[in-house]
Amino acid sequence: MSATKSYEELHHISKEAKTLEGVIRLLEWDQETYMPKGAQEIRAEQISLLSGLCHEMMTSKRYVHALEKLINIESGEIKESGLKSEQEAALREWRRDLVKATALPTKFVKDFAKLTSEALAVWQQAKNCDDFALFAPYLKRIVEMSHEKASLVGYEKVPYDALLDEYEPGMTSDEVSKLFSSLGTQVKKLLGDITAKSQVETAFLEGDYDKKKQIAFSEEILKALGYPFEYGRLDLSSHPFSTSFHPTDCRITTRISTNNPIDPILATIHEAGHSFYELGLPAHHFGSPLGESISLGMHESQSRFWETRIGQSRPFWRHFLPKLKNLFPDELKDVSIESFYRAINRVKPTLIRVEADEVTYPLHVILRFEMERGIFDGSIPIDQIPDVWNDKMEEYLGIRPTTNREGCLQDIHWAMGGFGYFPAYTLGNLYASHLFIAFEKSHPDWDSRVANGEFAFIRSWLQEKIHAHGRRYRSIELLKRIHEKEFSPEPYLTYLNDKYSDIYQ
Amino acid sequence: MSATKSYEELHHISKEAKTLEGVIRLLEWDQETYMPKGAQEIRAEQISLLSGLCHEMMTSKRYVHALEKLINIESGEIKESGLKSEQEAALREWRRDLVKATALPTKFVKDFAKLTSEALAVWQQAKNCDDFALFAPYLKRIVEMSHEKASLVGYEKVPYDALLDEYEPGMTSDEVSKLFSSLGTQVKKLLGDITAKSQVETAFLEGDYDKKKQIAFSEEILKALGYPFEYGRLDLSSHPFSTSFHPTDCRITTRISTNNPIDPILATIHEAGHSFYELGLPAHHFGSPLGESISLGMHESQSRFWETRIGQSRPFWRHFLPKLKNLFPDELKDVSIESFYRAINRVKPTLIRVEADEVTYPLHVILRFEMERGIFDGSIPIDQIPDVWNDKMEEYLGIRPTTNREGCLQDIHWAMGGFGYFPAYTLGNLYASHLFIAFEKSHPDWDSRVANGEFAFIRSWLQEKIHAHGRRYRSIELLKRIHEKEFSPEPYLTYLNDKYSDIYQ
Repeated sequence: MSATKSYEELHHISKEAKTLEGVIRLLEWDQETYMPKGAQEIRAEQISLLSGLCHEMMTSKRYVHALEKLINIESGEIKESGLKSEQEAALREWRRDLVKATALPTKFVKDFAKLTSEALAVWQQAKNCDDFALFAPYLKRIVEMSHEKASLVGYEKVPYDALLDEYEPGMTSDEVSKLFSSLGTQVKKLLGDITAKSQVETAFLEGDYDKKKQIAFSEEILKALGYPFEYGRLDLSSHPFSTSFHPTDCRITTRISTNNPIDPILATIHEAGHSFYELGLPAHHFGSPLGESISLGMHESQSRFWETRIGQSRPFWRHFLPKLKNLFPDELKDVSIESFYRAINRVKPTLIRVEADEVTYPLHVILRFEMERGIFDGSIPIDQIPDVWNDKMEEYLGIRPTTNREGCLQDIHWAMGGFGYFPAYTLGNLYASHLFIAFEKSHPDWDSRVANGEFAFIRSWLQEKIHAHGRRYRSIELLKRIHEKEFSPEPYLTYLNDKYSDIYQ
Repeated sequence: MSATKSYEELHHISKEAKTLEGVIRLLEWDQETYMPKGAQEIRAEQISLLSGLCHEMMTSKRYVHALEKLINIESGEIKESGLKSEQEAALREWRRDLVKATALPTKFVKDFAKLTSEALAVWQQAKNCDDFALFAPYLKRIVEMSHEKASLVGYEKVPYDALLDEYEPGMTSDEVSKLFSSLGTQVKKLLGDITAKSQVETAFLEGDYDKKKQIAFSEEILKALGYPFEYGRLDLSSHPFSTSFHPTDCRITTRISTNNPIDPILATIHEAGHSFYELGLPAHHFGSPLGESISLGMHESQSRFWETRIGQSRPFWRHFLPKLKNLFPDELKDVSIESFYRAINRVKPTLIRVEADEVTYPLHVILRFEMERGIFDGSIPIDQIPDVWNDKMEEYLGIRPTTNREGCLQDIHWAMGGFGYFPAYTLGNLYASHLFIAFEKSHPDWDSRVANGEFAFIRSWLQEKIHAHGRRYRSIELLKRIHEKEFSPEPYLTYLNDKYSDIYQ
């Protein structure tokens, strides 16, 4: 059999597993949007069953045999010549996934999926009732199983590295620590400078904004950005998210509150950024690493690029503010573009990560990263999580939660078993800053085009530079191909300093 | 291993397959409600993949081995003593399913699922564009594959029997012919008598009824009937349907038109009747035949019991008409209960089956049954379907479709591969009439209780008599246990004659 034939056979088997994975994502999407409450238990069983099947497929003899024909699984050496270099890259990623997957027994995968599906419902209830004790036993079990997972998968220095590596391949906690320490210091300094200045006026954002009009406006923005409703949809859920079952079925959710019309709009743009990545992956590579996103950090770079660099920019609102005013003439009649721009970029410490501004956001992430390292090296016992969280919050942001709902119960991630996930939020901002420099070089007139309501060129640029490559390159490598500079927090810090010096003079 | 242990093991394996089947139902539900249009192709692949996996599970060596311990698969003889008689009944049904399932190769099952998933989308388009030629090649292929299926599964007299047996176990086309022939003759006579009388006034049903109010009213009715929204939901789709993934997750859909508020209400009650059956199946038997419905005909008896015997009765509207008048005071102000009752039971030939009244409905079904027999014995070629359909329509109902959209393209069933399905609609009405006699004996005061807005006792009676037994008995056997009389079309004909003599004097 030729190398190409072998590759196609491998792709075919892998595609079945990825198709099944898409079905699991649909089960999860339904759980967060339309599922009747009483179906929680059977839903957990469905997800667990499919996760097990999927895992079996991706570790089956048939699959391993197909992969082994092309790459030495021990050494990672490509066995066959005649493949394209992108195909060779795909083989290396397939091998990486297999090594990780075979480290976990099917029973473990099923048990973990069942646990987290149940934990998700309990977390929701615990959050509603502000009852950490209700969630604690599930969290304890998730941490235990994550430790087990780390041991099974293996790591060089600390168990937490194994979890980090799942979301940002190749990144270690020492590297993240180093990045975050220089970032944290400078962000805290900037935050100090800002809070010393007079506050930005935002009272007009706290009116009584009609929900249906808001949803309609979010849909209008999505249409303007070129979001293809033929291959996606927008729904409501308690926590906005984006998901994908295939490049032809990517869905996003948002949430609406009557007293702030901007957060939901930015949440929608954020999730659209994620969705554009999934929609932009090459469909003919679906089922292979060339049809997948690189990492969670790169994913977040796409959402933050759209949210902060486009959605929170002056030109964007030069185009959309008049439309928003048409919708809410009474509430916004005296608001100038300048005061609107300053308001939606107001810096103010908040307890809730997803409500945080660009300047304080990294501090929320650094807090969570430190919590997770502490939980995993045993220095923060489960029952002390609320207190340690609150202490850190007070230290970094100068405010202290009075409920766990606004503290350690606010995020869905731990209930989903997503330890190691949070750092990607900040890595995403750092990546987006590198990308933006290259984007601005390619499109020096981006701001006037955006002010004219042109957006397709942004999606095209990101598609060509990022989405089209699937997992062919690692994050840092791809950034270097695009931007040429060494990766560091500097572009992000420069951006923050420039933008907020301007806003806060 | 004890017989009970062996039974539990078998149940466990079977439950996995049924859990997977529930996921397929969810994929189908999503396809009809929320799926983006562009996802059609990957959805067909997802359903095909899961159908194949499900089929593999239910024919796997592991499963067959577990079943063989308890029942001789050749002869159907129970091997182990010590089981309850309901468990023995379950074994016989499991065996029946296995024999049917092993008759079909996995590839066939996957191909058929893929074909029908694609056909569904093409049918929708063909119907929208009134273009039978677009759908014809898919229909041809479905008929071919159904013939293949019949040969694989086996039959005594004609291939069509194998298809019928799937929906109504044990029923043959000769039996159905006999039932339908006596039914058809008498129904045509009744219809003749009715059309000779003056028409019933229905103009007030053709106003401009607000859609949102109608949906709210359907929800109010569901709540009053005791529909548990904790375990179900109501959505909109182009064709109302009910589906179930587990007794804790049963969903129904309806459709709303502004110029007739009654059809959607009755469609909702109809689907709720189906849903009550699924919700009433014993959850601890989920995954075994004791947790499944008997047949499509029995399913339809539940929906028609609720729709026609309750929802189209005088006492029901004594309770609900005042509420409907509150919602639509202008449209309904001068309508008396008597004229309302007559209007919602008006007999008038229509081209569309789902809009048909109780008297003409059986003629729609008889037409389809004859079409299907003709398509399968080769006497009706695919390309002649539209003409034959229209001729028969004119002969039975005195009206002729001018488009295929209102003719042979109106129903979803053939696109779903559901040949043999239609007779169940009329069998359901026949079953419901037997059931209603027994119900009335148990609850002679049912009408005054319904007029008072009491409905829980109806659901309880049906749950105890039908739902609780799963597939322990065949339809006719269960009816006999409940009603004691031999099965025949008489109770249904008596009901129709009594009711419509009263309405049309």
